[in-house]
Formats: sequence, structure tokens, C-alpha cells
Amino acid sequence: MPTYKAINLIKRPTGPSSPELFEIVEKEVPNIKSGEFLIKQNHMSLDPAMFGWMSPDTESYIPPVELGTVMRSSGVGEVIESQHPDFAVGDKVNGMFGWTEMLVSDGTGVNKLDKSLSDEMILSVFALPGLTATKGLYSFGKPKEGETIVVTGAAGSVGSIVGQLAKADGLRVIGVAGSEEKCAWLTDELGFDGAINYKSDDISAQLNELTPNGIDVYFENTGGPIQKLVFDRMNAHGRLIVCGMIADYVGGEPAPGPSWMNAIRKRLTIQGFTMPDHFHETPQLLEKLTPYVMAGKIKYRSHTLEGLESAIEGLNLFFTGGNKGKLIVKL
Amino acid sequence: MPTYKAINLIKRPTGPSSPELFEIVEKEVPNIKSGEFLIKQNHMSLDPAMFGWMSPDTESYIPPVELGTVMRSSGVGEVIESQHPDFAVGDKVNGMFGWTEMLVSDGTGVNKLDKSLSDEMILSVFALPGLTATKGLYSFGKPKEGETIVVTGAAGSVGSIVGQLAKADGLRVIGVAGSEEKCAWLTDELGFDGAINYKSDDISAQLNELTPNGIDVYFENTGGPIQKLVFDRMNAHGRLIVCGMIADYVGGEPAPGPSWMNAIRKRLTIQGFTMPDHFHETPQLLEKLTPYVMAGKIKYRSHTLEGLESAIEGLNLFFTGGNKGKLIVKL
Repeated sequence: MPTYKAINLIKRPTGPSSPELFEIVEKEVPNIKSGEFLIKQNHMSLDPAMFGWMSPDTESYIPPVELGTVMRSSGVGEVIESQHPDFAVGDKVNGMFGWTEMLVSDGTGVNKLDKSLSDEMILSVFALPGLTATKGLYSFGKPKEGETIVVTGAAGSVGSIVGQLAKADGLRVIGVAGSEEKCAWLTDELGFDGAINYKSDDISAQLNELTPNGIDVYFENTGGPIQKLVFDRMNAHGRLIVCGMIADYVGGEPAPGPSWMNAIRKRLTIQGFTMPDHFHETPQLLEKLTPYVMAGKIKYRSHTLEGLESAIEGLNLFFTGGNKGKLIVKL
Repeated sequence: MPTYKAINLIKRPTGPSSPELFEIVEKEVPNIKSGEFLIKQNHMSLDPAMFGWMSPDTESYIPPVELGTVMRSSGVGEVIESQHPDFAVGDKVNGMFGWTEMLVSDGTGVNKLDKSLSDEMILSVFALPGLTATKGLYSFGKPKEGETIVVTGAAGSVGSIVGQLAKADGLRVIGVAGSEEKCAWLTDELGFDGAINYKSDDISAQLNELTPNGIDVYFENTGGPIQKLVFDRMNAHGRLIVCGMIADYVGGEPAPGPSWMNAIRKRLTIQGFTMPDHFHETPQLLEKLTPYVMAGKIKYRSHTLEGLESAIEGLNLFFTGGNKGKLIVKL
């Protein structure tokens, strides 16, 4: 019998990702029944949110992955067998496929995609990153031409799209990233007005210099010391979108946040948000995002790892900042 | 010539209020011109926001009081001379009159009031406290029947109204205050479902016991250690209204706030707000508030000090929590 590989989560992390948290299993390719189809996954996405999904239940936005089951992830694949009326062999599909080379589906939560789009573009722009950027920026950030936005994790999959959308809308866009190479990409390739390397720059001085008119919108993907500095430079009626706190995803008590004193003085709105609450808005979000992509305003780069098992260590690139662009595993 | 007294701010505070910050001046009662009227102030309001008004400009919501000018405050008075077509001798009026026994006005920012309302009720319910409570609770708190709200500074002028409005709307209402007497007032007189004495109770254990279903709305008037405990018990999609941080109004660097990690996990909305941004909504806010007052749902108590000079030390009651009810100075 032909077989395929999958990876189950078997232990909850207390630190970075490591092989002891997972088991690699080999399964027989099942026979499909009427109303089902078989997907061969070609690319799967690695996202910072996965650390939340692996952690014990903290009343998070979606329940944690059950121990002993396939690790959760989104991916793009191809239908290779079908007894389902709406899915034909050769269809390109995406969904929350998990860390597996193959899966059987009844169509629930699976979308058919235009075959002309590359898997990389789908996972980097039209899936979680683009939806998250679009929802967070427009619904909560309420950007206005001429305003200043600061984005952390700016070279990451979400942050890079947020910054480009804001730039296209006429904002002054300052990105925060973790290497000179990433900062250069932001300013030279994506057209950001400035970039701060939080690992080497005098972040306070740089921030002050790059935001002479203060900050109106803050898109937070990382946490870390930049947070308080930005908070203290927010203008009256500023909007802060809290989308990620990668600096605090694992390990003990998270670092405290800024005093709320300035939240009063500046009448700030701080909005925590996660995309799964808004998946039902996907059609409208794509309608908003697509014209920017069509107009060539949204560049992306993906960082592709090879083979299912590469996902395990690959996740740690979010902590080291070692990834350049959207992390994708090629199967 | 007849005279009256006023108090000017002459120095910015770096700690509690004290006589060196002010000068008491005696002025001649001026002659009014056409289009003006003379107000004799009878009661003036002391509010925690005054510390913000006295402080150096921190891009606060209204500019600081200029040194050498009358200290800012709201009050209720009576027109005693008039050459203004809309204001007659004997009219009851309120406005931002400042720390003065008399003032000349051209009517700007002055409202005429129903003479049947006591000055205490005006300053305790229908002025800043009631407007602030109504705006904050309904526009940002979005309370729903059956939800749980926690209010800090609950025995204060704003907090007590917030709690009573929420109670009237069918929420579970927990107040945080600084004495047994205040806590008893909240539960026995105002009908709160529970009260926590932050000075003596095991606040963590009490909070957990009194909010078995978590917390949906947090109305923050004080800051202090309760903040993080409440933050960590917020339910998904909870709303936090940051209205006051009296614990941090003076003295060095304010204490840090809670990590934003839970803002993401619970998709919280944290809204800093101050009433001056919303003064133009006063008619609608009074329309919302008045029926609750008419129905006897809003009790208040005022704590009256005697004489203009009593304002100086009186302000410090906000730090000690020594006031029982709305602080008012009778002139």
C-alpha cells in the first residue's frame, strides 16, 4: 500500500519548538468514499500563531491542537482523487490542512483557487497574512492619508503587507525589523519611509527622528522594548492594533506593557485582534486587498523550507528572526 | 469698593497639592459692560482631572492652566447683575468658572439650569461625573444584560454612577473602593453585587470569587494592582474603558500596565477617554442619563468642604481616598 507522512503534536512547548514535541507518523493512503476527495498538499504555511495553537488552553481564539493529533497549519494542495461533485482531480485548493502530505476532505473549509496563482503568492498574500493585514489595518487602524504608521515585524508576512497598504494610501510608513538586510528590503524594495533595526539601532533616537509628527497608527506584531517607545509617541486619538507578541509567545510571565496613563492623555484605542474571528469577512477583505495586488503595490518574498520535517525547526525562525519573508514548507 | 477672592495657580505640582502652588488674590468686583453678566459662584467642583490641568503640557486633552491665572474648575452660581439679553438676575448657571467667588461672563460656555435642582445634584450627577459615566459606559463599554462589569474608584463620583447605570441595565456589578465604609455603601445603598476593599482585602481571591463568569467590561478610574488582576480575568471581546489613573497622577514614572498578550488572546478593546472630547454630545448624554435619575436609579452623595481656600488641601483627598462622595467646595 502507498503511504504518506504526517506530524502529530504530542507534547506542549515550554520553550522553542523541538523534535520531542512531535512524532512523525507514516500512514496508508486511505480509500475515499462518496462525497470525499483526496488532497496532496504541496506547500504549507508556518505562522507565529502556531505557538498559540500548541500551547495549553488559555481561552485563546481557537482551541489548542489536541495532543496526538496532526499539527494545525494552512496549506495549498491539489485534488488527486475525487468522489465529490464540487471538487475535481487537478483542482488547486487551500485550507487548514495540517502538517501532512495528504488528507481526505469532504470539502468543509476547503477553497478552490485560481490555478494561475502560485502557491507562494497564495500563502504569502491571499491567505492568513493578507487577510490579517487588511482586516487589522482598515477596520482597527483607520489609516488616513498623511498620517504616520509604525509597524513592528515589518519584514514579516503580515507587517510587510500592512506597510505596503499604508504606503499606497499615502501614509508615512516606518517599519521595525531585526536585521540590516530586512531594513534595506523595507526601504529599498517596499518603499517604506524608514526602517529601524531593533537589534542594533538606538531605537529611541531613530524612532524620534523618523516620526517627527508623532505616530497615529501602531501595528504591533512583536512586543519588545519598541512597544513602550511607540506608545509614548502616539498622537491624540491614535489607534494601536495588537496582532502579535512573538517576543512573549513562549517562556514565563510576559513583560509588562506600557502604563495606561497615556491611553487617557491621548485617548488611544488599543485593539487586540486575531484573524479567525473574522474569517467570515474573507470575501470583503479580498475585495479590498486584491486591487492593491493587481496594481503591483504588494510585493512579497517567501522563505521556503524543504520537506515536512523541516517545519519543526522552522518554527524557531520566528524567534531568531532568521526567516526572510513568509515561511513556507515545500512538500 | 466691594471685593472677592480668587486663587491663581503659580507653580506646577510635582507631588500632592499644597499652598505653595497657589496664590490667593483679592480683587475688586468689576463693573459689567453691555453683553456681560456677573456670576456669584456658590459651589465649585473638585475633580481628579485637575491634576492633569495643573501639570506641564503633556499633550493632554485640554491645555494646562497657565501659571498666574485662576485655577480651572466647574461650578454652579447665580447671576447677580446682568446686561446680557439671555441671562437675568437670579438665573442659576453652571460652567468652568474656576476657583473664584465671582466672575464676569459674556455667556460663552455658561448653561442655565433648572432652579429646582440642588447645586450638589448638578455637580454630582448632571455635570462632569454623570456625563463621563454615561459616555464611557455606553459608547465604549457597550454593556449587555447578564454581563459582568468591574468598576474601580467605585465610590467616586464617576464610578458610582457607572455602577448604578450598569446595575439598572441588568449587569453583575462589582466595585473596587478604598474602605469598608465605601464598600458597604456600594453594596447596601447602591445595590452593587459585590465590593472589594483594595486596601485590606485579598484582592485576587475576592475578585475571582465575585466574578465567577469572568469580566466583560472594566471601567478603570484608578490604576493600581487591581488593573492587572482584572485584565487577566477579562472574557473574550471584553471592553476596557480607561477613564482615570489617580494612582499615577503625580510622582515619577507611572507603574507599567499589563502585557498586551491577553489583549490578543481575548481580543480586548482598551479605550482611553476624557470627557472634554465629547462635550458637544452633552444633550444626547443627558437624554440617556436623565431617565435613570428620574426613576430613582442614581443615588449620589457629596462631600462638601467650606470656603474657597479649602480647595487646595481638598484635592489631596483624591489620593488618600478621604472623600466620601463627590468633592464640592461651598463658597
